[in-house]
Amino acid sequence: MVILSDWLAAQLDKNDVEPVYRQLLRLMQQAILTGKLAPGTKLPSSRTLAGDLGIARNTVLHVYDQLSAEGYVLSTTGSGTYVADTRPDSAAVGPRATAATPDGADASAANAANAEPAACPRGDMSVRGQRLIDEAGVSAKQWGAFMPGVPDVAEFPARTWSRLQSRLWKSASHDLLTYAPGGGYRPLRRALSDYLRVARSVRCTPDQIIITTGIHQSIDLAVRLLADHGDRAWVEEPCYWGARSVLQASGIKLAPIPVDAEGLNPRESDLRHPPRMALVTPSHQYPLGMVMSLARRRTLLEYARQHKVWIIEDDYDSEFRYGSRPLASLQGLDESDRVIYVGSLGKLLFPGLRVGYMVVPERLAATFRTGVAELYREGQLMQQAVLAEFIMDGYLTSHVRRMRTLYGERRQLLIDAVTRHFGDALPVMGDEAGLHFVLRLPDHCDDRVVTAAAYDAGVIVRPLASYYLGKQQRKGLLTGYACVPHEHIEPAFDTLARVIEKHAFGKRAA
Amino acid sequence: MVILSDWLAAQLDKNDVEPVYRQLLRLMQQAILTGKLAPGTKLPSSRTLAGDLGIARNTVLHVYDQLSAEGYVLSTTGSGTYVADTRPDSAAVGPRATAATPDGADASAANAANAEPAACPRGDMSVRGQRLIDEAGVSAKQWGAFMPGVPDVAEFPARTWSRLQSRLWKSASHDLLTYAPGGGYRPLRRALSDYLRVARSVRCTPDQIIITTGIHQSIDLAVRLLADHGDRAWVEEPCYWGARSVLQASGIKLAPIPVDAEGLNPRESDLRHPPRMALVTPSHQYPLGMVMSLARRRTLLEYARQHKVWIIEDDYDSEFRYGSRPLASLQGLDESDRVIYVGSLGKLLFPGLRVGYMVVPERLAATFRTGVAELYREGQLMQQAVLAEFIMDGYLTSHVRRMRTLYGERRQLLIDAVTRHFGDALPVMGDEAGLHFVLRLPDHCDDRVVTAAAYDAGVIVRPLASYYLGKQQRKGLLTGYACVPHEHIEPAFDTLARVIEKHAFGKRAA
Repeated sequence: MVILSDWLAAQLDKNDVEPVYRQLLRLMQQAILTGKLAPGTKLPSSRTLAGDLGIARNTVLHVYDQLSAEGYVLSTTGSGTYVADTRPDSAAVGPRATAATPDGADASAANAANAEPAACPRGDMSVRGQRLIDEAGVSAKQWGAFMPGVPDVAEFPARTWSRLQSRLWKSASHDLLTYAPGGGYRPLRRALSDYLRVARSVRCTPDQIIITTGIHQSIDLAVRLLADHGDRAWVEEPCYWGARSVLQASGIKLAPIPVDAEGLNPRESDLRHPPRMALVTPSHQYPLGMVMSLARRRTLLEYARQHKVWIIEDDYDSEFRYGSRPLASLQGLDESDRVIYVGSLGKLLFPGLRVGYMVVPERLAATFRTGVAELYREGQLMQQAVLAEFIMDGYLTSHVRRMRTLYGERRQLLIDAVTRHFGDALPVMGDEAGLHFVLRLPDHCDDRVVTAAAYDAGVIVRPLASYYLGKQQRKGLLTGYACVPHEHIEPAFDTLARVIEKHAFGKRAA
Repeated sequence: MVILSDWLAAQLDKNDVEPVYRQLLRLMQQAILTGKLAPGTKLPSSRTLAGDLGIARNTVLHVYDQLSAEGYVLSTTGSGTYVADTRPDSAAVGPRATAATPDGADASAANAANAEPAACPRGDMSVRGQRLIDEAGVSAKQWGAFMPGVPDVAEFPARTWSRLQSRLWKSASHDLLTYAPGGGYRPLRRALSDYLRVARSVRCTPDQIIITTGIHQSIDLAVRLLADHGDRAWVEEPCYWGARSVLQASGIKLAPIPVDAEGLNPRESDLRHPPRMALVTPSHQYPLGMVMSLARRRTLLEYARQHKVWIIEDDYDSEFRYGSRPLASLQGLDESDRVIYVGSLGKLLFPGLRVGYMVVPERLAATFRTGVAELYREGQLMQQAVLAEFIMDGYLTSHVRRMRTLYGERRQLLIDAVTRHFGDALPVMGDEAGLHFVLRLPDHCDDRVVTAAAYDAGVIVRPLASYYLGKQQRKGLLTGYACVPHEHIEPAFDTLARVIEKHAFGKRAA
């Protein structure tokens, strides 16, 4: 026992920030786990050890209590305290698994578990996980010229928001601090259904609205409730990388469908194999920006009705239209309840808000309410209540109106800069709406390379390449103007223009 | 054309809250969609129609603009405005799919889509979706005696929180309003890693911490990144319904593993087939409350090392231990980086907060940061910043300390009430820690029935039955005391006791 107390005395540092109690506990545990204190060893009495170490006996008693509470030692009243035998008992660890197991999946799992890292078919990660990471589109930077899809958060009326928030925290009932009931905060759902009816011609009651944390969660929920692993989904080609990732993470096979000037344009061969669902952006194709024509909308709805296809309408930024008024939603045309409408407030207010919504057919509303609560355990009712007041007091619509003007001006400034530099050499696509447009590049140049070079020069854009699932049909850069102050647009574009000239037209940088 | 303007005049209501512009637009669209205005029909000039309806010509012009923007009409300068042909072109809708499709999955999808609702193998919902809903454990009520697992949100220092929040909204940089970088707000991750090192003996750096919206999202992320559809996972029997749902929603097969007084206790047959992952609650088995012994911990870690099993340690409420100090985490014992540690602040502060965290092995940290951003597009940085200050200023630890005392008293009051009513007839399990304990019921009585009867009498409990995947081994009620004010405990238990006496011992209600 002398050895133990000597060793402990040597290790203990009474001047250390770590309290002596924790030091002693850690050291004793270490001694037991490493075998320095063998199973069955009797520990010195608390009085003895305290004396040897020159510390309070209470400290030792507390450590012994904790050691026995955690199962390191066994105390038998009267006869003292002994080190417990906690060595992994080799029998319990069990034999190495053999591939001879009831069913294939198990066998392969067992093999995977058995194989050495090198031989291991996938190692640490799952196949779907590896794919998710390999194909991840999310970018490290979330702010700056010309980051697409990001609103100008600096323009958000933070004071107003903060005022509503403080008032609510003073007065609100405690229920708002518990989990959310499926579907979310009722007054917010009412406010949203009114807003969507007027602004987006969505036909819905508050009951049909499910509050989510955004479009990703909305799609994830719809996919898990409505489609199974191995089912097929139509996605627009090109389409939003995030939606692709969410679908694939749930085992959905993607069928890329071409888009033309009128939007989604399925081929004969596509139509012959109805998918389980179709993910579309009718108001403003993402990322190219065309509007799905009424004829195509009605054709798609009819096809969905005939073949029981679920349509997920992603209506991510249609509030920002610079020419005509916002277009009516596809959901508003749907007579046969095949459309799940998903939207978000992130682009209207600020992305970090993480509030999205989905509008589901009435017969599915209860199911989706249960599903969202069961899968994600939602909460954030305080924030939902603040948001509800923000909307009901008219701040949302006035903010959107202000931003539409502001973004419209920035869009024009950027287009002017493009024209000044390149004339008609680089056409602009999808500038009628949204927070970005596509700056077309000559077919011979690699938009990924241009993007990387621009990034090094301090300008963020996204290459059209990363939105294609199959062969890239068009070259171009997603160029966002919404979050760039007027005065920064021209200088930032000068930088981008130099990069483009160098790569697209082989000019040397000035 | 007279017919049109007459019909419109009959429908238009100038005193309606809906602006005349919107009414006219809606009516014209309706007329076109229903065929009342056939394709090719020439619309009256704006002047004529305005005259017929006695409204401003500008209104009509706006409606015509919008109709052509949405593709309802075609305007040819000079020759006027015609109704466009937007009827679904039957060719485009395509032939009914045949089952003769390249591969099985497609065929079945096609069949599903083809079949009539009655014949349809699953109809609206997916198999996994239907199962999720059928087996959903989430309850409508989230508050009241004796709701298990819910802290007393009324005790949360809302004023302090609100003060920190207001200060931050005044001063904070705009970056906090954008999307979160993978992993979450850096200072919060630092604060949490310090907290977890001290409070839970978790070994980690801030880099290893990933902020999530809670334990559901943490498990969902780990499962998708580390396990594939069809892989097997060990779950404790009984275990938390929510974890079960999340695993199954990602196609994981569940292998229920018995627990005894020392926690997880796999049988020979279990050990022979190593799973891809094991989900455990070592500090406080959920729902039964036993602590996994050190011997079992070391055995599990050794087994995981040998067979490359991922261990998910769900450490959901171990801060609340009423006898000994909180136990060390399993992660802290892990030498071979097989443990993913998940926890949440919901039970420490308030459930609606939706902030959880996971601690992942260093080599996986970057992967998980990308994964969480790609799948969920996180944000809420403002709230994370408030939380970071809340923790760094010491409010978290002092609140937890206060609540531990408070919950300890309530637990005692409830135990006293149980003993007063039933003596030793109804033993109490797992009362050393947490926010609930299990009130055992005689084997002959159905705890689901008792739960339903209690609910009707105004008392919430959860039946042990709903936590078993296989055959129910024990009968009992999860009884939460944390969110029940001292003075309500006895009266509420009197009510519950009457229900129990009636069902468990056949006594008539007093």
